[in-house]
Amino acid sequence: MERVEEVDLDDAVGRVSAEDVKAPFDVPSFNRSAMDGYCVRAEDVYGASQFNPVRLRVVDAISVDEKPRRQVGAGECIQVATGSIIPDGGDAVVMYEHTERIDGEILVYRPVYPGENISKKGSDIPCGKEVVKNGDYINASKIGVLAALGIARVRVYEKPRVLIIPTGSELAKVGEDKSAIQIYDINSHTLAAVVKANGGIPVLHEIVPDDEKEIEKALEKGVESSLIVITGGSSVGAKDIIYEVLSKNGEVLFHGVQVKPGKPTVGAVFKDRVVLAMPGHPTSCLSNAYLFLRPVLRRIARLPDTGLKTVRAVLSRRVVSTLGRRFFLTVRLRNGEAEPVFKESSAITSMAEADGYVVIPENADTIEKGDWVEVYLFE
Amino acid sequence: MERVEEVDLDDAVGRVSAEDVKAPFDVPSFNRSAMDGYCVRAEDVYGASQFNPVRLRVVDAISVDEKPRRQVGAGECIQVATGSIIPDGGDAVVMYEHTERIDGEILVYRPVYPGENISKKGSDIPCGKEVVKNGDYINASKIGVLAALGIARVRVYEKPRVLIIPTGSELAKVGEDKSAIQIYDINSHTLAAVVKANGGIPVLHEIVPDDEKEIEKALEKGVESSLIVITGGSSVGAKDIIYEVLSKNGEVLFHGVQVKPGKPTVGAVFKDRVVLAMPGHPTSCLSNAYLFLRPVLRRIARLPDTGLKTVRAVLSRRVVSTLGRRFFLTVRLRNGEAEPVFKESSAITSMAEADGYVVIPENADTIEKGDWVEVYLFE
Repeated sequence: MERVEEVDLDDAVGRVSAEDVKAPFDVPSFNRSAMDGYCVRAEDVYGASQFNPVRLRVVDAISVDEKPRRQVGAGECIQVATGSIIPDGGDAVVMYEHTERIDGEILVYRPVYPGENISKKGSDIPCGKEVVKNGDYINASKIGVLAALGIARVRVYEKPRVLIIPTGSELAKVGEDKSAIQIYDINSHTLAAVVKANGGIPVLHEIVPDDEKEIEKALEKGVESSLIVITGGSSVGAKDIIYEVLSKNGEVLFHGVQVKPGKPTVGAVFKDRVVLAMPGHPTSCLSNAYLFLRPVLRRIARLPDTGLKTVRAVLSRRVVSTLGRRFFLTVRLRNGEAEPVFKESSAITSMAEADGYVVIPENADTIEKGDWVEVYLFE
Repeated sequence: MERVEEVDLDDAVGRVSAEDVKAPFDVPSFNRSAMDGYCVRAEDVYGASQFNPVRLRVVDAISVDEKPRRQVGAGECIQVATGSIIPDGGDAVVMYEHTERIDGEILVYRPVYPGENISKKGSDIPCGKEVVKNGDYINASKIGVLAALGIARVRVYEKPRVLIIPTGSELAKVGEDKSAIQIYDINSHTLAAVVKANGGIPVLHEIVPDDEKEIEKALEKGVESSLIVITGGSSVGAKDIIYEVLSKNGEVLFHGVQVKPGKPTVGAVFKDRVVLAMPGHPTSCLSNAYLFLRPVLRRIARLPDTGLKTVRAVLSRRVVSTLGRRFFLTVRLRNGEAEPVFKESSAITSMAEADGYVVIPENADTIEKGDWVEVYLFE
């Protein structure tokens, strides 16, 4: 289950490191000028001032892709650029702005202390320092530190596979013709979208009829996945079949949750795999995917436990909820207002027109028009 | 530039629709039971009550995958499941909970009005309704509505290609050996990560030396991309070269921005392509990528203009900024505190250890320890 793969650095973004990475060398790997200017012996210019400039001889100039050719002697300086290697003998850099060039010499108008404008070898990342830990999420800045160390391949955890099983004798497969009494399988695709957006690989099972044996056979295929999501059963009978199979062959962890829509959700373990049985209604299925599947999957994928992005908005009209059940109200955002679009759990438009949802807590039965609400944005 | 491609439904999540999609049929495509129960003629049960139940004959039972075999006559009912087609003659559904079954008959304990517990044909999505518009961002819920309509392939805008040009004679390519005076090219990879996370395809150019002709040649390759990002030039001379090339051969839109780090950023147009010339220092380059590249790219990719996710935290120590420049302070989050990790723009650790950044506005010179700050999280 905790399989590891090696990927190119640029493909590692958004993944999770499966190894501790230590710096194989110092960064910077030499004493490095932090400014464009002149490398000097600091003691030569201690007395420099606007009215008493110190005169130094420019004995060389090195660019960022050149090695120093000579040392900085007393009374001497070497022209350097940001990033240049500090030549031996020199111990500080005077910025251009504080000098004046006159042929082969400069006038230095300000003193520098030893080490000024120099990034010391290893001061940024000392050799051997752990820069990425096993389990770290790899974002753009972690990519940067790996690049700095020349690391082109990264060992990351494989993305967890999530088996998605649609059940329902009335379902037709998207892309195929359907008969007059069939409806298209929606939930496989919305679940796949949530799985993809949260670091998983959706594995879509064929549509399974409302039949115990067939459902059991489908669940068996879950051994190759890290997580199983089974959906369907909007009718009482169909719901019962999934529950029956799970309780007979596995261990039911919870059955029914105090949320609306989405009450008939089941959590179970089947042959060592966590199974989430989602309601068949598309709106319930999707809101419960955000509520239960997303955090479970992110945990399995070792991704940071960040919630959905939220925005605050004003409710455009009064909404009545049910005491004792947490209500997930789908809303559309228009001009800073959250407009409820929830029709019924079976309505596709309840979610198609929604930008996200508002959570109405168990202990509230009414939210008034004009109240501020937090909108969780669909991702 | 505005090229379009057709992708599988499950690959359309996170993309932008390049077409208006209209419903090719009604959803539901038949009058559909919204409950498990009995389909009745409403007028038959108007008088039903707890003490005066109405008795109806059960003449058939249809599951969700069966067509009705007969009509509902007066004094009759047909057992239906959630999702069943409503048989002719029937005009309401009585929920199981409000009935009692006695052999071939039921007692109905509550009246229903005509249409009760029935989702009318087309009530969710009427045939011809525009469900996805050209330019719409396709998230999980839009995937759901497309699936409901059986749409397996979606026309979406191609992801914009972003040409990333690293310049600097001192740079070595990640994955290759570097000499003692070289440093690895970091910015190509952090920029590629930001491009990927924001709907673009990064195209990495080879490392270009600090040479006008070579830089011009590299920029010419931008015609195949929607956007060009060129980085490098941490030294004054190198910076000048990029600016020179852009002002000679293109149109400079801005040169230098009032932010810290990242002041020496250039915006230009070169042969009809927007060019962002980023500072060479990796921390400046990354913070400016979030600041300038991200919104420009999202606009080109037609993605929603959402900012980075933010969290509020307490600053762990006093921070002094520069009046007149907006300061992007990289911070690490620990126990609800934002700990500054900024060392200097050239330090990789300034970003490697950071979870995000705090913006200190132009008109503030000090943020006190204990002040609440908004942390923009790296994505």
